[in-house]
Amino acid sequence: MATCYSIQELMRMISSAAGSIADTVSDREGHQFMDALLGASRVYVTGAGRSGLIAKAFGMRLMHLGMESYVVGETITPAMQKGDLLVAFSGSGETHSITDICKTAKMVGGTLALVTSRSESSIATIADLAVVLDSRQYDDEGLSSDFAIRQITGSHRSGADYNPKAPIGSLFETAAMIFSDAVILELMDLRHTAKDEVEDNYSNIQ
Amino acid sequence: MATCYSIQELMRMISSAAGSIADTVSDREGHQFMDALLGASRVYVTGAGRSGLIAKAFGMRLMHLGMESYVVGETITPAMQKGDLLVAFSGSGETHSITDICKTAKMVGGTLALVTSRSESSIATIADLAVVLDSRQYDDEGLSSDFAIRQITGSHRSGADYNPKAPIGSLFETAAMIFSDAVILELMDLRHTAKDEVEDNYSNIQ
Amino acid sequence: MATCYSIQELMRMISSAAGSIADTVSDREGHQFMDALLGASRVYVTGAGRSGLIAKAFGMRLMHLGMESYVVGETITPAMQKGDLLVAFSGSGETHSITDICKTAKMVGGTLALVTSRSESSIATIADLAVVLDSRQYDDEGLSSDFAIRQITGSHRSGADYNPKAPIGSLFETAAMIFSDAVILELMDLRHTAKDEVEDNYSNIQ
Amino acid sequence: MATCYSIQELMRMISSAAGSIADTVSDREGHQFMDALLGASRVYVTGAGRSGLIAKAFGMRLMHLGMESYVVGETITPAMQKGDLLVAFSGSGETHSITDICKTAKMVGGTLALVTSRSESSIATIADLAVVLDSRQYDDEGLSSDFAIRQITGSHRSGADYNPKAPIGSLFETAAMIFSDAVILELMDLRHTAKDEVEDNYSNIQ
Repeated sequence: MATCYSIQELMRMISSAAGSIADTVSDREGHQFMDALLGASRVYVTGAGRSGLIAKAFGMRLMHLGMESYVVGETITPAMQKGDLLVAFSGSGETHSITDICKTAKMVGGTLALVTSRSESSIATIADLAVVLDSRQYDDEGLSSDFAIRQITGSHRSGADYNPKAPIGSLFETAAMIFSDAVILELMDLRHTAKDEVEDNYSNIQ
Repeated sequence: MATCYSIQELMRMISSAAGSIADTVSDREGHQFMDALLGASRVYVTGAGRSGLIAKAFGMRLMHLGMESYVVGETITPAMQKGDLLVAFSGSGETHSITDICKTAKMVGGTLALVTSRSESSIATIADLAVVLDSRQYDDEGLSSDFAIRQITGSHRSGADYNPKAPIGSLFETAAMIFSDAVILELMDLRHTAKDEVEDNYSNIQ
Repeated sequence: MATCYSIQELMRMISSAAGSIADTVSDREGHQFMDALLGASRVYVTGAGRSGLIAKAFGMRLMHLGMESYVVGETITPAMQKGDLLVAFSGSGETHSITDICKTAKMVGGTLALVTSRSESSIATIADLAVVLDSRQYDDEGLSSDFAIRQITGSHRSGADYNPKAPIGSLFETAAMIFSDAVILELMDLRHTAKDEVEDNYSNIQ
Repeated sequence: MATCYSIQELMRMISSAAGSIADTVSDREGHQFMDALLGASRVYVTGAGRSGLIAKAFGMRLMHLGMESYVVGETITPAMQKGDLLVAFSGSGETHSITDICKTAKMVGGTLALVTSRSESSIATIADLAVVLDSRQYDDEGLSSDFAIRQITGSHRSGADYNPKAPIGSLFETAAMIFSDAVILELMDLRHTAKDEVEDNYSNIQ
């Protein structure tokens, strides 16, 4: 074991980078997102790859809060309708299969909320609202010269050879998970959810 | 919208709490975990609920690095054998279905690594090695009096009425994701993985 | 290509074998199963391996009919409660993880219906009702001497070296799928479900 | 309970209908499909809704035979490459998300095999080979006047108001499962797979 950083050091770097991304979320974005959630009949979540796993983690918590939520592609997910909200997690905003799902959501009269790392993209163009978790903002602070940080942020993928479909950096997903959990805390507060109610919904069979 | 904290503030709290958990990981735990990964023929991952999603996120990255990894319960997961490693994510270390899977892994001659928030549990007892991401350590710093922090850490669940099966706090899962990503960066360094190789394994069909 | 049978011939053999299994279902079993479905608040489905896929196919159709159904282990599956029904698909009735889930269902006050190929098993013992799709009945007709039929029915696994966890024969799963579809047709008839209603629930987003 | 048919009768009807579909598979289709499987480096499977579950059941069996198979969308599915085969299950051959996946498979140099109920469709146009399980052939035999049979075959959806995205009839999926199992038996024969080898691959951890 002769790497530059210990696992603990890398964990602190990632946490710190994720925290700094909070600064890139505007109050307006936060409010719009909360309003969309509170106003939706049902909430559908989607995402590809690791972003899809974060989408599921968010959808599961919504269910714990007693909200009706569904994961696109799971077995018992019913047809989406007018009044329903789709929350799409896509760092690039360009993932082909997710773009298609977003188009469908709009076509059936649903509302589309995007959680992304780029303010401009195919999905951002059709989204009703977007929350931008901008890991590139972080790069601007001059920390991107370091290998580990570049891996974390995926910043070496930016520029001419930027491939939005395949960032190595996992920072968007971590930031998206932290954003989701912050939203859940906010929802619990706004809905005056008692923890006992939440616990009643925890899966007792798995 | 009249909550105590903005989403941005909650995100910073969660990130900071997750970062402080890095301090609870010992060098020995980190080394043992890396050695187990590097020495395994194949790596299986498992976890229930949201921990299971983190397990999948980790397994996906291992595949990206060119390692042979499988998620317990997915379609094409083959029988586990001697020489294989099971990485179980369980905050409580007591989840019944995961305990059963861990016992099976040991029975077929596999190695069992546990990522958990408690040093003592049913799974910890039979694990070959464990990484403890102790969110209760964080509580000791006196921050647990605040509602939001208590929700984040799930610390209000500790004590007499502690129910290891249902912590509200999502902090373990966030810390486990950050730990997993730190491990991936360490693996890339140790294996001299070029980012091009990683990209070649990214799913191009989803 | 010099095999004993063409794919078409094998398809006819499998279909014929599956059809003959219908004879092993008693009227009482059929009625009990329909009554349990019609009386349940919510229907949970489970199964391991390929039986789990048949369970999902059944759960999806129940959703199409407008019934509230959940797959054990999927993201938004809430806690099971008294009045809920668990339909477990297990050929052997002994699969360890499914047995555990069945015990939990009983413990929380749920009703347990088993779809299986053996009338006696660990799960059968605790089930409130069972539907036996007995592929071994078919073997008794003297057709089991043939390689293909033996593979289809898995009958070579019976007897002393019978391993309930690993039958090669896929016949149980095929019969279970056909049984499930028959149940769905019966439900549509009993509930006077118009096909338009069913179509409204088809996923429009996947 | 005052329905026209018992569950047993419905099971026999479905089995019989599925068996008759075997007649619509040509020898050439069967041979091409087997050759594609035997010549592939890796086999990817995909399908939407219930067809996706049949695709998984097929992919699982391929793994049991020791072949390298992957389910599109699962966690550890690597990038598809030249020499790989995609087997798509789509009754209509028009499902949007599956069409996209098929186009990607062709674009990266993969071979595309389609299992479908219609000889002409968007996917059929780009597929290298197709196996047509034509449930409408069955309708021509004059049996479609009956309610149950119409539900089974979905034939009432044909004609002017035919909606390829939402057939109620589950017959295609049942026939596709039986076709898949026939293919597996054929593969075992051609590859001289001993049942012991198959059993060694059965999941022992789930």
